[in-house]
Amino acid sequence: MNDMGRETRLAAATLRTCSGEQRSAAIRAMAGRLRASSANVLAANAADVAAATGMIDRLMLDEARLEGIALALEAVADLPDPVGEEIARWTRPNGLDIARVRTPIGVIGMIYESRPNVTADAAAICVRSGNAVILRPGSDALGTCLAIHRALAAGLEEAGLPAGCVQIVPTADREAVGLMLGGLDGTIDLIIPRGGKALVERVSREARVATLGHLEGICHAYVHASADIDTALSVIANAKMRRVSICGATETLLVDRAIAPRLLPRLAGALPGCELRGDEESRASAPMEPAVESDWSTEYLAPVLAVRTVAGLDEAVAHIARYGTGHTETILAEDAGAAEAFLDRVDSAIVMWNASTQFADGGEFGFGAEIGIATGKLHARGPVGPEQLTTFKYVVRGTGQVRP
Amino acid sequence: MNDMGRETRLAAATLRTCSGEQRSAAIRAMAGRLRASSANVLAANAADVAAATGMIDRLMLDEARLEGIALALEAVADLPDPVGEEIARWTRPNGLDIARVRTPIGVIGMIYESRPNVTADAAAICVRSGNAVILRPGSDALGTCLAIHRALAAGLEEAGLPAGCVQIVPTADREAVGLMLGGLDGTIDLIIPRGGKALVERVSREARVATLGHLEGICHAYVHASADIDTALSVIANAKMRRVSICGATETLLVDRAIAPRLLPRLAGALPGCELRGDEESRASAPMEPAVESDWSTEYLAPVLAVRTVAGLDEAVAHIARYGTGHTETILAEDAGAAEAFLDRVDSAIVMWNASTQFADGGEFGFGAEIGIATGKLHARGPVGPEQLTTFKYVVRGTGQVRP
Repeated sequence: MNDMGRETRLAAATLRTCSGEQRSAAIRAMAGRLRASSANVLAANAADVAAATGMIDRLMLDEARLEGIALALEAVADLPDPVGEEIARWTRPNGLDIARVRTPIGVIGMIYESRPNVTADAAAICVRSGNAVILRPGSDALGTCLAIHRALAAGLEEAGLPAGCVQIVPTADREAVGLMLGGLDGTIDLIIPRGGKALVERVSREARVATLGHLEGICHAYVHASADIDTALSVIANAKMRRVSICGATETLLVDRAIAPRLLPRLAGALPGCELRGDEESRASAPMEPAVESDWSTEYLAPVLAVRTVAGLDEAVAHIARYGTGHTETILAEDAGAAEAFLDRVDSAIVMWNASTQFADGGEFGFGAEIGIATGKLHARGPVGPEQLTTFKYVVRGTGQVRP
Repeated sequence: MNDMGRETRLAAATLRTCSGEQRSAAIRAMAGRLRASSANVLAANAADVAAATGMIDRLMLDEARLEGIALALEAVADLPDPVGEEIARWTRPNGLDIARVRTPIGVIGMIYESRPNVTADAAAICVRSGNAVILRPGSDALGTCLAIHRALAAGLEEAGLPAGCVQIVPTADREAVGLMLGGLDGTIDLIIPRGGKALVERVSREARVATLGHLEGICHAYVHASADIDTALSVIANAKMRRVSICGATETLLVDRAIAPRLLPRLAGALPGCELRGDEESRASAPMEPAVESDWSTEYLAPVLAVRTVAGLDEAVAHIARYGTGHTETILAEDAGAAEAFLDRVDSAIVMWNASTQFADGGEFGFGAEIGIATGKLHARGPVGPEQLTTFKYVVRGTGQVRP
């Protein structure tokens, strides 16, 4: 691991100062090599699938999914280059010209579970933003990820960049995670964990470097008394049921007392196949299973919706502050004043008005790609794309100024 | 401490949504109360000074210094309010209107040493940026800081804000620091340590929340072969000698071989009172004490300058990458190509061309105030003023959009 650290630091220094065109070319070459390696990758994947115990669907690849991964790489190659962008520039009264310029962070450590596509996505987004990356996939997908990584490394070399720009931990032992969380002797600038609660907890306990974490997404939809009921039902149905397993799926519905008797009786019909778990007052408006305290803090990732009737905006905001995870919340309302108050007072990474929480996604935001949604407050918040994997430096140009 | 945590969380929620005008008024009231309490504060300070063992100068207050602190508060009250600023706004093809809006971080934990002015500065900058703050001053200054804090709390209440917006740990025991580094049960979002090596190391070892650290400032001035010698000497003299004890003071001078025989003989004359410690090649150009390996990684904070002759830009950049702390470096050069290469390749928070490293300061950058210089790469880099103590959220306004 320490040899890997040294090699990655050297590669990061090359990547930081090479041109954006060269990094685009490298990502395109990675896509080409991935297509050329499809037989190898699919064979490795078949072995992983045969040995796997659960979550087969997200682990399994076929020609179509592999082509999807290659196309995603090419889309990242086409994204604008964030590195070197002047974010701001001003001149001081003494003539000093100060620019704030976007720069790569350095070396990213990516710890994730058994989604093979993350190997390629994370590598592409890191190279796009000028960062080297050390990948640590889950053991279930290790064979597949190693095969994908070989193709990516060949693509980097084809474009004249060091293969060390994208590293992979070649073993499944958990000690490697500990070394990464320790920063690998000063190598790793930022850890991005992407996995379940156990990983997130281990990271928050052991990490000695900065992390861009992703807690659960307990997203809320709040129906204000002024909501248009048809719009509300349409958005709630999408927010809950479009895909129940993504972090932007709504888990709890809050409904104003004044509108509950008109909205709740139509809820079950609008969300076919969804189990509703309501508090006592909601169950007085429509038949539902009873909700218990733990329902308010459960990320179901399943066709289940917790439903609570509230007195109004204050109670909705207080519920979200207490049970939310700072991911995404939406208000359904026609009253602009109420909506703006909600948008102002709810302190989540993404707050919405009359829109589905399932829009919480880097692609939907126009970022082109993402490697996760950050639920912390520092550095980046919300979808993490190439721009969010940069930092900046101040470039000060003078003519011999000295400070009085 | 846990009661303090709860109270601070509540105060932060109030502060986050009150108006910028109210926060300005509170900072002005803090200044007024501080002036009204000058007898109390100076008496407490006299007791601290009588008990102190070292660093008397930075601990001691008098009427003039206290008035300086009050004026600094009023300057922060006049700064533009960063909270609520729209950093970016765009519309997606589906009509979703997405804004990126600046928001307070929440609760800042500030751990510092015996400079009483930090108590007021940190409180003002945090209130300006909508953050509550928990202050933990060094034991030497505790009496003075408690007296200042009483005035600040009275100012907050005068402006109708909870006194809990600015908290102070009332004891000198080190256990409180451990509780703060643990996040105080989810209360503290960001720790800002401002102190010596021992504190920085403790923070990096124990912190369970994000930190905005300040490593040492081993700043470099590099004289390129193309430099104008008079300009170079003038800038170096300022960069080293204007104030030797600040983190932006230059500690190491790198000089191109091609210019060393013309520059170095004039160095001692340009820096009267400064001890020069040169490598062998530099000492062949002018008499100096011999430098040893540890000189390259020492933050002297004293009138001492380490001097090394290098072959050219590559060697200078490599030296800075090896020994620098990512704070501030400057190149003295007339060759614009060489200067731009240096600005591009050196990965420090601040890189300069023909300007003194002592300009590394929030006030000099036009930020109005700062509570430190961040030498890490995440979230904020360089001077930390009110804007750097904010985060952002995405505000998405729709008309009932659902995700396909």
